[in-house]
Amino acid sequence: MKIPLTQYMPFLRWLLRYRREDLPGDLQAGLTVAVMLIPQGMAYAMLAGLPPIMGLYASVVPLIVYALMGSSRQLAVGPVAMVSLLVASGIEPLAEPGSSAYIQRAILLSGMVGAIQLFMGVFRVGFLVNFLSHPVISGFTSAAALIIGFSQLKHILGIPIERSHHIHRIIGQALVQIGDVHWPTVLIGVGSMAILLIFKRKRPTFPAPLIVVLLGTLAVWGFRLDESGVQIVGAIPAGFPAPALPGFNREAVIQLLPIALTISFVGFMESISVAKAIAARYRYTVDANQELVGLGLANLVGSLFQAYPVTGGFSRTAVNDQAGARTGLASIVTAICIGLILLFFTPFFHDLPRAVLAAIIMVAVFGLIDLREPIHLWRIKRSEAALLIITFLATLFLGIEPGILIGMGVSLLMFIVRSTRPHYAILGRLPGTSHYRNVERFPEAVQEPGLVIIRIDASFYFANANFLRERLERLLYASQRPRAVILDASSVNYLDATALETLVDIVRQFEENNVALLLANVKGPVRDVLKTSGLYNRIGADRFFFSVADAVDCWKQKGKQPSGETPCRSEAAILEKASAF
Amino acid sequence: MKIPLTQYMPFLRWLLRYRREDLPGDLQAGLTVAVMLIPQGMAYAMLAGLPPIMGLYASVVPLIVYALMGSSRQLAVGPVAMVSLLVASGIEPLAEPGSSAYIQRAILLSGMVGAIQLFMGVFRVGFLVNFLSHPVISGFTSAAALIIGFSQLKHILGIPIERSHHIHRIIGQALVQIGDVHWPTVLIGVGSMAILLIFKRKRPTFPAPLIVVLLGTLAVWGFRLDESGVQIVGAIPAGFPAPALPGFNREAVIQLLPIALTISFVGFMESISVAKAIAARYRYTVDANQELVGLGLANLVGSLFQAYPVTGGFSRTAVNDQAGARTGLASIVTAICIGLILLFFTPFFHDLPRAVLAAIIMVAVFGLIDLREPIHLWRIKRSEAALLIITFLATLFLGIEPGILIGMGVSLLMFIVRSTRPHYAILGRLPGTSHYRNVERFPEAVQEPGLVIIRIDASFYFANANFLRERLERLLYASQRPRAVILDASSVNYLDATALETLVDIVRQFEENNVALLLANVKGPVRDVLKTSGLYNRIGADRFFFSVADAVDCWKQKGKQPSGETPCRSEAAILEKASAF
Repeated sequence: MKIPLTQYMPFLRWLLRYRREDLPGDLQAGLTVAVMLIPQGMAYAMLAGLPPIMGLYASVVPLIVYALMGSSRQLAVGPVAMVSLLVASGIEPLAEPGSSAYIQRAILLSGMVGAIQLFMGVFRVGFLVNFLSHPVISGFTSAAALIIGFSQLKHILGIPIERSHHIHRIIGQALVQIGDVHWPTVLIGVGSMAILLIFKRKRPTFPAPLIVVLLGTLAVWGFRLDESGVQIVGAIPAGFPAPALPGFNREAVIQLLPIALTISFVGFMESISVAKAIAARYRYTVDANQELVGLGLANLVGSLFQAYPVTGGFSRTAVNDQAGARTGLASIVTAICIGLILLFFTPFFHDLPRAVLAAIIMVAVFGLIDLREPIHLWRIKRSEAALLIITFLATLFLGIEPGILIGMGVSLLMFIVRSTRPHYAILGRLPGTSHYRNVERFPEAVQEPGLVIIRIDASFYFANANFLRERLERLLYASQRPRAVILDASSVNYLDATALETLVDIVRQFEENNVALLLANVKGPVRDVLKTSGLYNRIGADRFFFSVADAVDCWKQKGKQPSGETPCRSEAAILEKASAF
Repeated sequence: MKIPLTQYMPFLRWLLRYRREDLPGDLQAGLTVAVMLIPQGMAYAMLAGLPPIMGLYASVVPLIVYALMGSSRQLAVGPVAMVSLLVASGIEPLAEPGSSAYIQRAILLSGMVGAIQLFMGVFRVGFLVNFLSHPVISGFTSAAALIIGFSQLKHILGIPIERSHHIHRIIGQALVQIGDVHWPTVLIGVGSMAILLIFKRKRPTFPAPLIVVLLGTLAVWGFRLDESGVQIVGAIPAGFPAPALPGFNREAVIQLLPIALTISFVGFMESISVAKAIAARYRYTVDANQELVGLGLANLVGSLFQAYPVTGGFSRTAVNDQAGARTGLASIVTAICIGLILLFFTPFFHDLPRAVLAAIIMVAVFGLIDLREPIHLWRIKRSEAALLIITFLATLFLGIEPGILIGMGVSLLMFIVRSTRPHYAILGRLPGTSHYRNVERFPEAVQEPGLVIIRIDASFYFANANFLRERLERLLYASQRPRAVILDASSVNYLDATALETLVDIVRQFEENNVALLLANVKGPVRDVLKTSGLYNRIGADRFFFSVADAVDCWKQKGKQPSGETPCRSEAAILEKASAF
């Protein structure tokens, strides 16, 4: 009864076997994450252009739904910086931030993201996320962190800066108005950042964000700083978010579709990578498609309770794990805490300065800027460092969505272009062995006169068929034409129809020029194509060998005995013998 | 003096060494092609929506320019069916076929195609044409041939059919009006097709097109069939096309850009494939980039003499070759013949029925429909047959340009998707040898208990890094965990940063689970990445082997002597010995 049910109710996996000794850890972790989530949720909602209370709304229902339907036991779902930024970048062109139309669209967006993720999970296309490579993620994240960080400058400095995703415009506006900064706001903002940074370095588990929230609120309340111009959160309605269908119309859905797709993708990527890292530590598996279902339902059901898009975040998941979370119960405890806050403690946040929330965001995201990765890549592979930098610059100067699309496009293009000009090697025998290796890398390797052994390191397919042809023809028309060529096909993983035609042509040219063509290490999938097309028989079964050494031996024997009837160790000969064993 | 000049004046290559004995062949071939080109040129111009005379204009200057600047000696440049169809499909939405605006745009298009091809040639991006695979070309060509053929139905049947690239609409209109066909026209059209088909089968070198042109013209002239409704070519101006700058404006250039790019690409593809085939027969090389320069200049200069886009065609090149062309002089002879026709014989074409030209087009293009290729592909590789059919259907129902773009997109996508789920094999030893092969394909192959040898047939990169991880983790968490795993990396042509991170993680997991991981057949480019990243030393130099057999031997020895100090034949050990030789 258990197996089929857990497919649809993954929480049964931990609930049915719940152990009493897991309870203290789950309770403590749930509380700890709640303490973190209160200021973070409000801060990220502000980043998304939403009233801070929306961050708390998004921290109740989605958490419970994910705990029931997701496959990670430690993942802390809720508002995160990257997704909040994407929400802002997607809705700002359509509505005034903070307006009712803006809020309605953010809730609708959550429903759309949920539907897309659910669809992807049900139709098992979670593998698509594999197309985001590390350099692209790193470049994109660093640029997004910069954009997010600078977007908070106005709250820290207390000056009006027009929202923009062009970082040079933000810096320009800040420089123009640098004389007009609001000093009490700067004091709160920079002071909060200092406290956060000190605790982050010295005692990372300490709930510093809650402390700065507390200190900031007390300062405003004590000195009535709001009257002297410090921006505060202001009155927020008490009570649990009422269930309601998100405002829905065709036009809005079409307008939001591109950003919904981006958030579905980027949010899932952030979530699955942290979920997998934690799962590996505890030796359980997270299934990409089940994760999509869990996140999708969290967003979909969340949008019925006024939540904006959420996903699993890096930092809170790490805290959840360190504080002792063992099952999804921890997330349910967090959600209950936030629910109680919503019911009874919202008046407390009235005097909270926005500069404190901005400080929390800035300190959080600047930690995401990764300088080590580009340096590491530069050492290993210049082209991948270039990919990172391209993605970084495209995100910074062209915007969030173009940035990630350009990164993905360029990385795929690099893969394809690389395959069109594959690496190849002329092989020689390592003395004292039967191993054949690249003569350029192993100068001690010995070549036979009159024989060229070539290894082309690529699947043969339409985009490199001409390269292949030119490389082999060059052997034929060289000043010293060899008497035989051995093609080491160990690296040829695939042969398509275009490359097959090319190969037929090459075989014909070798015949016409009386140069023997022998093949070694041909793989099953390639041999299949050669056989069904008839090229295998045309080349001759006695010209296929299991290793380069066998091919060389055979060629040498033939040279001595012109009858050509020597017992070569061709594939066919070996298999005949082997079946007699 | 010769070498550097021929770079810019390729014709010097044949002119400076011109042999008297080549002259008769060149003359005969030039005349033969001219005889073919007169009706074909007019027919293809009609297909392009242009007055027939434009086909002759395009058969003078471009031929001479190509003969001087191209690298093929037999290629017959001029109007061809595919490019003419593309011209029609691109300009019809912008102007009324046959109108002055339409003609001006066709000439401008030729200039744009020329400029693009020249640019591609100068910047050496001719390799881009490699991205068109055989199945895509075959599917596209067959569909385009059908569209071209059916577009001529109105001329054969003598009924008005609205131009359309949706073949079902053409057939529908024809069926609706089937009772209104113009019988004299049908007689001429079907009769011409019958004559052409008979000669095509029985005597392919016979100039049947010229015969049907002659017969059709005589029939109209003798029986005054034009008065009873047979559509004729009508009055055409005599004289050589006057040089003039094509009408140029920014808006027109932008509108024509997509079709100009398509024609540059498709035209070049048709030309280079036939040029390469012929060059291979005569043992000279054509350079893709020089060909682009030659064709580009032919189109660019042609557009100054009222030519519409041209390229090298299949059929006329074959005739040129068979009739004895040895150098570019043959094309110059052809151009002179056409020039003389333009100067003195245009009145002769007044009574030529359009049905004859339509018959010439239909017979020519239906020969391009290739049924053997899909059947052949179906036998070798279903996925490539599917690719052909997708391209065919997309071209037929969505149009010429979407068809070719979808074909290219799908073929690249197939390549990428295939690489994300690579083929892999568990290896065993073939009895009596040191060869290790896929145990599924070679049931006689023997496996060692406690040892798994796996070969993953792909470059490791971001899109398949997760596949790789899951495949190797499955070995670790199998019910019977092996004591050692040998990864045969002979097929791994490349390792990117994302896959490297994954590999680091896998190595860690193997260590934690006390399963030895040995690597065999690691290639130079992969070893470089492993070394610079430090993973090579982490894994240990003594765990890299030149062959699976060496790795197995070493593992077996270690099992017996737990000291681990046995003289294994690792890469390092072998190289040390080899350098002592």
